[in-house]
Amino acid sequence: MSERTFDPEKMTANTRASVSMAEHIRITVEVAEPGRVVLSMPKEGNTNHIGTIYAGALYTLAEIPGGTLFSTTFDPKRYYPIVKEQTIRFRRPAMTDVTVEMTMTAEEAEAIAAEADANGKADYSRTVEIVDTEGTVVAISTNHYQMRTHGS
Amino acid sequence: MSERTFDPEKMTANTRASVSMAEHIRITVEVAEPGRVVLSMPKEGNTNHIGTIYAGALYTLAEIPGGTLFSTTFDPKRYYPIVKEQTIRFRRPAMTDVTVEMTMTAEEAEAIAAEADANGKADYSRTVEIVDTEGTVVAISTNHYQMRTHGS
Repeated sequence: MSERTFDPEKMTANTRASVSMAEHIRITVEVAEPGRVVLSMPKEGNTNHIGTIYAGALYTLAEIPGGTLFSTTFDPKRYYPIVKEQTIRFRRPAMTDVTVEMTMTAEEAEAIAAEADANGKADYSRTVEIVDTEGTVVAISTNHYQMRTHGS
Repeated sequence: MSERTFDPEKMTANTRASVSMAEHIRITVEVAEPGRVVLSMPKEGNTNHIGTIYAGALYTLAEIPGGTLFSTTFDPKRYYPIVKEQTIRFRRPAMTDVTVEMTMTAEEAEAIAAEADANGKADYSRTVEIVDTEGTVVAISTNHYQMRTHGS
């Protein structure tokens, strides 16, 4: 699967079309490769009652890459992901545009796919950091996903 | 503080004005009393790639009542809240409109305010259930807030 290539612009459009909240907070897919995605979100338009980025927008920026990484790393015709649980910790106020990176090694992906092939589903987790333009980690999120085979 | 009354329509307008995501997903304040708030969100417009309510919308519906309850229970001129950490567990697909209730006893509120008065801040948590129109709990969220005194 490492030979597949992806157009970040198309991935952005697809993400925004399938989840209107991603459109609303203007999440952009910056990097989309098998095993690695980077997404960004502007501060503008996404602030709360104290002028920093609203928690729900940060949560969503932390969650969406699970779907993006899924699309670049697995076969969406065979599998689909759901999010089962997510813990987000807010470390610092987010006062600039922010980015998030999510990765998965080829070995991890193969093990998850093998388990889903055997059992119809496979649980896996990713921990991601949301980083501001200074490089400060403003939030850390651990996302628990389940991959399922279609029709199982 | 139990004599204060609140207009759910005004609270809805204020919430949507301060957090545009709340406007986008059409969160409505249904009940706003000291110590108890109920908020709702429609399914329509808030779905994901599999046609159920998107996780980020459910997360936001679980988080926003923290601010609503704060407004009805504490003095916003003296204190303000931030969310420090939140864990949301998705139990069932959300396939209808949903509601959430958040409560706090007068004793709890007094203890939190006393601690903030003494230390400039006070941590507190709320666990809420998001319920569909059948009464099924679709998600459970534990929200860790910190109340701070202005200027501390």
